[in-house]
Formats: sequence, structure tokens, C-alpha cells
Amino acid sequence: MSSKKITIGNYLLRRLRDLGIDIIFGVPGDYNLPFLDQIEDFGSIQWGNNCNELNASYAADGYARIRGIGALVTTFGVGELSAINGIAGSYAEMVPVVHIVGTPPTASQASGAILHHTLGNGDFRAFANMYKEVTIAQANLTKTNAAEEIDRVLTQCLLKGRPVYIGLAVDLSDFELNIDPSDIKPLNLSIPRNPKDDHEAAIEAIIDAAKKAQNIIVIVDACAIRHEMMKKVFTFLERTQLPVYVTPMAKGGIDEDHPQFRGVFAGNCSTEPVQKEVYNADLILSIGSMNSDFNTGGFTYRLSQKKTIEFHTYHTKVFYAIYDKIDMRQLLPDLTEQWPAELIRQNNAKPVEIPPPVLNEKSDEIIHEYFWNKLPDFIPENSIVVAETGTSEFGVFNMRAPKGVTFLTQILWGSIGYSVGAALGASLAGKNDNRRVFILVGDGSFQLVCQEVSSMLRFKTNLVVLLLNNDGYTIEKLIHGPDRAYNNIQMWRYHKSFEYFGNGLKQNREQAITGFADQVKTREEFEKAMQQVVKETDKIHFLEVIMPPMDAPKSLVLTIEGTREYKRRERETQE
Amino acid sequence: MSSKKITIGNYLLRRLRDLGIDIIFGVPGDYNLPFLDQIEDFGSIQWGNNCNELNASYAADGYARIRGIGALVTTFGVGELSAINGIAGSYAEMVPVVHIVGTPPTASQASGAILHHTLGNGDFRAFANMYKEVTIAQANLTKTNAAEEIDRVLTQCLLKGRPVYIGLAVDLSDFELNIDPSDIKPLNLSIPRNPKDDHEAAIEAIIDAAKKAQNIIVIVDACAIRHEMMKKVFTFLERTQLPVYVTPMAKGGIDEDHPQFRGVFAGNCSTEPVQKEVYNADLILSIGSMNSDFNTGGFTYRLSQKKTIEFHTYHTKVFYAIYDKIDMRQLLPDLTEQWPAELIRQNNAKPVEIPPPVLNEKSDEIIHEYFWNKLPDFIPENSIVVAETGTSEFGVFNMRAPKGVTFLTQILWGSIGYSVGAALGASLAGKNDNRRVFILVGDGSFQLVCQEVSSMLRFKTNLVVLLLNNDGYTIEKLIHGPDRAYNNIQMWRYHKSFEYFGNGLKQNREQAITGFADQVKTREEFEKAMQQVVKETDKIHFLEVIMPPMDAPKSLVLTIEGTREYKRRERETQE
Repeated sequence: MSSKKITIGNYLLRRLRDLGIDIIFGVPGDYNLPFLDQIEDFGSIQWGNNCNELNASYAADGYARIRGIGALVTTFGVGELSAINGIAGSYAEMVPVVHIVGTPPTASQASGAILHHTLGNGDFRAFANMYKEVTIAQANLTKTNAAEEIDRVLTQCLLKGRPVYIGLAVDLSDFELNIDPSDIKPLNLSIPRNPKDDHEAAIEAIIDAAKKAQNIIVIVDACAIRHEMMKKVFTFLERTQLPVYVTPMAKGGIDEDHPQFRGVFAGNCSTEPVQKEVYNADLILSIGSMNSDFNTGGFTYRLSQKKTIEFHTYHTKVFYAIYDKIDMRQLLPDLTEQWPAELIRQNNAKPVEIPPPVLNEKSDEIIHEYFWNKLPDFIPENSIVVAETGTSEFGVFNMRAPKGVTFLTQILWGSIGYSVGAALGASLAGKNDNRRVFILVGDGSFQLVCQEVSSMLRFKTNLVVLLLNNDGYTIEKLIHGPDRAYNNIQMWRYHKSFEYFGNGLKQNREQAITGFADQVKTREEFEKAMQQVVKETDKIHFLEVIMPPMDAPKSLVLTIEGTREYKRRERETQE
Repeated sequence: MSSKKITIGNYLLRRLRDLGIDIIFGVPGDYNLPFLDQIEDFGSIQWGNNCNELNASYAADGYARIRGIGALVTTFGVGELSAINGIAGSYAEMVPVVHIVGTPPTASQASGAILHHTLGNGDFRAFANMYKEVTIAQANLTKTNAAEEIDRVLTQCLLKGRPVYIGLAVDLSDFELNIDPSDIKPLNLSIPRNPKDDHEAAIEAIIDAAKKAQNIIVIVDACAIRHEMMKKVFTFLERTQLPVYVTPMAKGGIDEDHPQFRGVFAGNCSTEPVQKEVYNADLILSIGSMNSDFNTGGFTYRLSQKKTIEFHTYHTKVFYAIYDKIDMRQLLPDLTEQWPAELIRQNNAKPVEIPPPVLNEKSDEIIHEYFWNKLPDFIPENSIVVAETGTSEFGVFNMRAPKGVTFLTQILWGSIGYSVGAALGASLAGKNDNRRVFILVGDGSFQLVCQEVSSMLRFKTNLVVLLLNNDGYTIEKLIHGPDRAYNNIQMWRYHKSFEYFGNGLKQNREQAITGFADQVKTREEFEKAMQQVVKETDKIHFLEVIMPPMDAPKSLVLTIEGTREYKRRERETQE
């Protein structure tokens, strides 16, 4: 037996590093400080000191969407609860995030001591219980279960693609496990085998259906890009030569210059040519669908289940027949292999064009119709575009996407402010690959989370913040109460953000170099600023883009109309 | 039968107004907009549009501590979860706050629709379930139960002095109840009667003990000032003439020039004369105690249970004997009445003096020893002092409290950043009584919540922000890792807060008038600025007080030492 040992904290860090994590987000708190010591001393993992826990959870989510997994550390009670909205978002949107919570000393927990950050009632499980609702696995580490439990929850995190919760008592991170670090084997991340007969029956049913169809299309959705399925999808597309569409939640999952790419489908919010093509299909292969209101143009899909085959991780559904536990991660490769040669048709379709903007030539205002059409000119290939809930997420729907661009949105969970923390995380995740991050955030959303600009400076990022200032909660105004006072907000000097958050202060020894940081009020000003942005790739920039208050992307207006119509129908059905 | 009706939303607003609420905090979200319409139209309740939900929950808590009850509105999922840390704080610290959550349409909930702000799994109860851990009562309003459920949870909120949760579906706030508004009777808020025999036995036991004692003292703690007990306490003190001490959580509950007031007791953190007096007592009447680590000088109380009688709402404990369900709110008035005349001793003690500061005359640095001794000179009577978790909460322990000053701290829950939102709430609660609010907040804590300065401007408050800038998380450094990078933060231009958050912009039609807004680096600068503050009572002020990084109040250092010692003992006991 080896005499070498490893502490619980270092075992956890070792696992996280081996999974590709090189920064852990979070906020210090006295119950996590010994673990933060271990992070600092570990060497190959950076401590991502955020301004608050909610932003830390957004950052971990943004990082995970680029790298495949992310992590954050908070303290017991106050810290973990401030982060819970962000973790719930990761849960809803299927993002694998590891949330490590520094908990009080084991002895105090056992004795029920009335410590700060507790409810004062000796209950040390209340917050972990809350986390059961929004994480896929939870562990409360002890001296005896630590390694096993860490392995279990990390495996679940990656296999299920959802957040997990790890409670680490302040006195245990230094506890030494009888494990020789050189004996640690990689985690077993292989997907459980599909039940054989069901698997084969599903493939047969799909191929049967395909043989009967004249016009097959593929729609790629959120869960495909979340489950690292995209390689398998590309192989399938190459073999079958089928035309492919993405939903808003999968925007960027397929390059828009891919020869089979046809457009973004979101019911009434799609362009007319896209709608026509999709509704003309007689067989739809829907991969990883997530039919939420804002992902379907406000429930305006008119796709019949009679024509749809759904691929999920938990089941496969051929028209009305469910093949339970048939996971697309195994099904799709086998389907690719067995796809009959006679079904392969050469793809000769012309690329779908995004209609040019309709602009009033006399005006120089930065309206949405102009903005989303012009923006892609300034987005380099392989960038990361983080679009905030609200006007921005709808703005990017039908925006031209340059090659290799990844889009981060929170279309299902929709927590306003998400984009700012997520962009910080994405920027640090994409740093080594020179992937620059562009944030599109509204003024209303920015107000919830503004402080994270401080971290963007501190971590020397080269982010580009595009703050769309339309003076209020425009998406809310469109939904309800356009003239109500509650939809107005205090106007800030947003473009002074770098200055306020410490740019140039001598105490901040290392900092991002700042480039453009001002308002742009006309198209000319916008384009000039963006030219500077494109040139100065090593700098961080902040454009406060002044837009007319009630202007909005067409897709947003259409989605709201769709949702209204849906609610009306739903009420009628009920009455 | 009357034909008059009232909507669910207006019924709720009517109840809240009758309980004294004139502002409801929160953030708009599409599931709460119809209720916000009702607030705007109601007339006598203002909408307290915050910058984010966490700050809204802090504001409602701060308001409730001044007014006896507070309220906030958030939206489903994203909004309510962002506020849950603040509500947990209200729960821990016994503050009655009503949290109203706008939920999706009842028809969508029934059908399990995949709406934005949901987990995408059709589960509409997940968040309400989480709230069961941190609220004393919960209601999910329906067309048939609304009035009854509103009455039930509001009654619980006030009787138990803890937060409650109300789910209000977006389509129900306009639903009309068959209730004539003029028929609405006030809520029955009378406390259930104590069991008669137990009640009498407890009084007898207490009086017996008092007769045997030579030296009786009273210690007033958190739960006494939370349960509106203070009037009953004052009557008791007047009758008995006993000397009285407060704990840190009850600081300000008894005026420091009250003839029987002797000082703040927190074990080793108290001044020596106070410790001597308390430990000399042979009978301690402890009212509403909350023996948490930071409320007891890090568990450094050396009070024997053999000498202690505890008064709680849930029981009374005479030495080792528990009188179950004997509520102090009924017990204390009866005890006052029956207190034997022969036990009344004239109080002739000299007031306890707070020792003068020990200062190095050569230095002009703003150190804690100077600051907390000088500060009270500038705090007018009846002000509200909100002291942040960290150095500030410890700084106010032994600070001289001018007459009528209320102290707001979160000594048990200790969520950093609390003071900023809470101060906003307290300021709006104290407005009509001309009670000015002073915030004492560290730079580290301020970074979590800075945006609420925007609301302070917007609501035309005359707050005084004292930001203690010691360049980092000093309390954490004292606890662990003084030289660790994770305890350092990015330096900001804090004193530019008013400017950044929109002071003077023409779009902000109505705004606070700003007074002093700069750094103060010397005692002279501090005193000059505070003289301006005192004179300009209608203006809002911001002092960035520059302090040496590792300097801290003595009480903080002692508490940390005490906690360390406690942990050592606890570990030893366990091993």
C-alpha cells in the first residue's frame, strides 16, 4: 500500500482540472477560505473572485457552455442562496455546473450550534434541501465518503449535463484521504447502453418512416448542443445530406455557411422562406427539442406530431410511439451507420438569404432593423456572442452568424442580467483560443448585475460590451403596461462603467487595457466605434448604444403576439 | 347580500395598507405586471422599483424593522430565487416580510406548459417548495381560497414575526371576489392564550427565584425588539427598577440614557465594567435571547443556566425547567403586575461610561478606535443606523448611541451587502417621521449591491452613506488568509457613485439633491464633511472614508478570538 495521501480539497481540484476546468468562480466567505487556499496553491486553477454570488453562478454557466463544465464556490447560507437563481438557470437549460459550498465545521453542525449564516435553529440541511430542486445530484462530503461522492456527482453532472451540489465543511478540505494521487483513474463517463431490442426497433421504425417520406428535414435544438451531441449530428448530416434548421436555443450550433444549413426555425418568428420549407416537410427529425414559449415563437409551431420523430437523451419518440430510455447519444451514430444509401439525395438547394433590412434612409437612428443587420459585419469568426434575455435574444434570432460563432442565450430560464456574468465566464473560457466575447445587454438588465464589469477589468479580458440603452424595460412594455411607471428605470451614465469600476487606479496593479468607452447615438458613430473595436483586439470596449425607447426586433413582437394568442386559446379550452 | 366586489389584488393591497405598508419593493416581471398595475392604481401604496430582487428583499426587511412589516413583489422563478437569500435573512432574524410572487397563468400551470422562467419540466411548485424552508407560512392563491389564505398567512407573518410567501397567478390578480370592501374586518392578531396553570406556575417559579436573589439583572436580546415586546419590557423595567443590558442584536432597543441602562453585553467583547456587573449578578432575566456566535462575542458568555431565566415566545425556561408554550408576550405583563413590592430596589447606580479612545495624537489616520468614538457626535437623535456585516456591525457594539437611535444589523444571518438595500427600505419607512438613515458599509460588501444607490437617488432620500474603504475583505483577512489574493478586491471610484448612477441626468426628472460626495482621508476631512451632512438634512451624501487596510474594531478581533477558541474546544470534545 502506498503511503502517499491527498486532501479532500485537492482531490476535488484534481478531478475538476482533469475535466478541463482552469478557473473556479465564486466569492470568499469564512466557511470556504481553507478551500480557497488550496485553489491558490494548486497552481493550474485560477480563483475567479466575483463581485457577488449571482454573477459567479452566471459566470460558471457561461464558462461551462464553452468548455463543457464549469464550477463555483460560495459560502454556506448567504452565499449559496444568492447563487441559486443562476444554478436553477443551469438546471433548466441543461448546463453542467459544479457548485461547491463551504459549510460550517462538522462539529458545529453535529452540535447544532447557532452560527452566523444559519437560520439559528440548528438546521444545517435546509439549503442543501432547497438545492435538490435545481441540481441533478448532491453530496455532503465526509471523511469516509468524500472521494466516492465527488466521483459520483461529477459523473452525474457530465452525463446528465446539469448542475450538481457539493457541501464541503470548512474543517474537511484539509483532511487527508488514503489515496495515492498517482493511482487516481479517470472518471468513467460512458453512457449506459440503450436496451438492445428497443434500440433496434426504434432504428427500424425511423428508417421505415424515412423510406415513406418525400421531404425529410432535421431540426437541431438546445439539448443537442448541450449534450456534446454536435459531432454526432454533423456525421449524421454528412451521411444523409438532409437539410438542417436550428431553433433559437441552438443558434450557432451549425455554421450558417454549412452547405445544408437552411435557417433558424421558430414558428411565426422565422423568415417566410424558412417557414415555407419547414411546413412543406413530410418528416421532421427533431434532435434535442425544448419547446418552450420563447424557443417556438410563442408556441406558434404548426408541426404535427404525425410527421415528427423526436430524439432525446431520455427517450426517442417516433410519431406517437415512445421508445423509453433510448438515448440519442447512442441512437444517432447507429442510425447514421444504417441510413439506407437509396435515401441519400444530393443537396442542391440554394442558400437561404436573410432578407435585407427595410430602413428609412433619412434617419440615422440606431434602430433594431439596422442594428442586427449591421452587427455581424463586425463580429469576427469564432467569436462568442452573449445575448441577454429581452430584446437582444430576439435580435440575434435572425441575425447572420459569422462562421464558428457561438451564441449564449437563456431563452428558457430568462433571468435578466445573465449575460454580464455569463460573458465574463465565456471570455475566460475562450481566452486560450482567442475567442472574443461580445455582450448584447439592455439597460434594464445591466442594472441588476453591473458590478461584474469590475471583474472584466480585473481579469484583463478583451470583452466588447454593447449596452443597448432604450431607457427602460422595453420587453415588458411590449408585453404589458407600456405607459406604466414601473417599466421605467433610473438613467445611469453607463458609458462611465470602466471609470467607476476602477480603470486606471494605481491600487489595481494588473488590469485590462480599455479602448472605446462612450455613447454612440448615430449609425456613423456606431460603425466608427466598431471599427476601432475590431482593430484593437487586445482591449476591452464599452459601447452605450442609444436606441429609440419603444423600437424592438420583429421576432420579439411576433413572439409576444404568439404567446398572447396561446394564452387566449388556453383560457378558452379551460372555460 | 351586497353586490360590491373586490379583486384579489386589491384585497391583498387593502390588507397590506391596513397593516401600515405604504411602499412595496420589488422588480417588474411579466408574471406580476397586472398586480403592479393595481399597486399603481391603488393610490396609497407606492411601487418601490428596485434594481434587483436581492436588494428588494433587503429593502423590505429594512422597512419591516422600522414599520413592523414589509413587502416585496417578484416574478416567478428567476425573480423569487434572486430574493431568497434576503428572505432567508428575514426568517433567521425574525423579521415579518410578505413576499408576493407573480406566477404563470393558472391554465398554463395546470397544463404544465414549458414557459420561460420555469425549469422546463412542467413543475410549477419547485420554487414554492424551496420557500417552505425560509418562510413561516405559504399560500398559493386560487379563485376560491384567496381571501382566506391571504388572511391566514398575514396573521402568521405578524404573530410569528417571520416572512411569508404568497403565489399570485398573473391572471388572478384581477379576479373579483364576492366581498364588499366595506365588510372587511381587521385581522385578528391577538396572541393565543398561554395555558393557564403552566402560566401561573411559571410566574410563581420566577418570583420565587427573584426573592432568593440578591442581584438581579435583565438582558434584552433580538427577539424582544422583533416581537414588539419593547413596550412591555419598559413597563416591566419601570416597575422593577432592575438594571438592564442589551446584546449586540438588541443595540438601540433601550436608550442609552435610560436611567437603568448599563451597557451592551457580548461576553469578552463587552467593556470591562459591563462584564464585571453581568458576571456579578446572581439572577439573569434574559428576554428574547438569540445566542449566536457573533451576538455572544464568539460564544464567550460565561453565564450559568443555574442563574438564568429565559423568556421566549415559544417557551419560558426557569433555570433548567421548561414551561412549554408560555409566551413572554403574555407572561411579562402578568409578571410585571405580580412583581412583589419588597423586591423593588431604588436604582442609584452611576451611568456606565464608555472608555475614551486611545489615540496616537501624531497620526491623522481614520482608524476604528477614532471613528466609532467620533461618529455619534454627528448622529442626530432618532436616526437609524444601518451597520453592515463585517467591521461595521462590530464597530457599533460599543459605540455611544444617541437617544432614540435604531440600529439595523444582520448579526445572525450576516449576508454581506444587506445594509445598502436595508437602508433604502429603512429610509422610506422613516421618511414621515424625519428619521434619517446612516449606512456604515465596507468596500467589499458594497460591491455586491452597489446599484441600489440608484434607487436612493430616485426615491429622493436624504441618506448618508459612509463607505469604509479599507481595500478588501478585512473581516475575512482577520479570520483567515490575511495575505491571500482572494481577500483582495478591485478598487473602485466609490465616491463617484452618485454620478455613475445618474445624478443630474435630465432623463431622471425627479431625484435626490446630492450634498457631499467625495473621499475623506483625514480626521479633519471627515469631521468637516460630517458637519456639512448634519447641516444639509434634505440632501443625500456619500463619504468614502479611507481607512488603513488591516485596522479593525477591538470587538471584532475579540469575537474572532472567541470563535477560534470555541471551535478548538468543540473539536477537542469531539475527538
